[in-house]
Amino acid sequence: MPHMAMSSRTLTPDLNPTALTPQELGVGARVTVAVMDSDYVSILTEALAHAPAGNLQVRTDPVSTWLGGSERDIAVYLAALIAQAGRSGAHVSASILLSRGCPGEVVCAVPAGRLPQVSPLDLAPTGIHAQAQWALYPLADGSDPQRPADHMRDIYAAIDQARRNGVVVGSEHYVTVLAGDLADVIATVVTAWATVGASVQHVTSHLTISVNSPTPAP
Amino acid sequence: MPHMAMSSRTLTPDLNPTALTPQELGVGARVTVAVMDSDYVSILTEALAHAPAGNLQVRTDPVSTWLGGSERDIAVYLAALIAQAGRSGAHVSASILLSRGCPGEVVCAVPAGRLPQVSPLDLAPTGIHAQAQWALYPLADGSDPQRPADHMRDIYAAIDQARRNGVVVGSEHYVTVLAGDLADVIATVVTAWATVGASVQHVTSHLTISVNSPTPAP
Repeated sequence: MPHMAMSSRTLTPDLNPTALTPQELGVGARVTVAVMDSDYVSILTEALAHAPAGNLQVRTDPVSTWLGGSERDIAVYLAALIAQAGRSGAHVSASILLSRGCPGEVVCAVPAGRLPQVSPLDLAPTGIHAQAQWALYPLADGSDPQRPADHMRDIYAAIDQARRNGVVVGSEHYVTVLAGDLADVIATVVTAWATVGASVQHVTSHLTISVNSPTPAP
Repeated sequence: MPHMAMSSRTLTPDLNPTALTPQELGVGARVTVAVMDSDYVSILTEALAHAPAGNLQVRTDPVSTWLGGSERDIAVYLAALIAQAGRSGAHVSASILLSRGCPGEVVCAVPAGRLPQVSPLDLAPTGIHAQAQWALYPLADGSDPQRPADHMRDIYAAIDQARRNGVVVGSEHYVTVLAGDLADVIATVVTAWATVGASVQHVTSHLTISVNSPTPAP
């Protein structure tokens, strides 16, 4: 329940040289993949079998699948899962929530340590074209007002990086519009989320992806 | 592009007695309804025809449908749209983004005025059972650090209200788990979002709904 977060931290000087691990930071994702085909169960089952879980924790419930682990493992898994579902030819819609910095449920208790720097991700192309809508939320819940994080600096840096990746195609109400190879879209969003996470503890991001949409782009 | 918001405001005293309208506040939603059936186009078309647009602005793109208008109109539309898709018997997944307080794209310019109080919504039952996962984000982007909004007070009030509505069934990583009649789930989430919006300008909320899921609850 991230919205009940009680505390948040900004980047601290290197008093403690040990960067927090993804597990300590609660790095993870929730994903819902919807396949618009009556064969959706077998298409999804095959896609899940195709996605490399690696060191991820993976748990499915009736609404979504939770992934816990490193940013790279999450990005690789999401790209493989959605690409494989898209290769069925069916229209696929995926809803993704990325979260970091709030590993608990009600209170965001994070152990002492430095927020980690994450290198930009680069994923192998999938050959699947994706259209997507993206929102990125640095959450300042309960942060020390004497030491506010410079959210805007981080967000502008993240957006600049996304533009350099060539996947930003516009903006719409409440979201940034992305298009490109599914791997580039996911790598861009995961990198931006992790980049902001280098200076803001609690950062979430939401991404809705459409593959094989019959609706023409406006 | 709400994550590029440049300013946010907290509730101001009643110097200006005129409450901002939903249009001035940029009250709106994006929704993606995925129907896991090869007949999804006709099921969605019928559901869209069934949903009462009323005074809403409605615009569909390849990824989602944008709704602009009042909180009540949005809630009524979403409940009717998703319920009707669910009546097909198909497994339906809906991804909803609610946003208020950032009507622009890059800069959240809001005219002078009081943030509005919104009465709790009460929708007629749909008869459709929904499972859902919910996140609520009061965004303090660039707010005056001398006058921080009391996010926690607002969030606790919103959660308390949701519990009283009887739809909160648990919490999972990053989300609150809801279940109940689709109308109660949507009314609860829209009410909570609007309640927090009475004291925080920029508030978003994300809801993933599952109807007719073949996956048993854990």
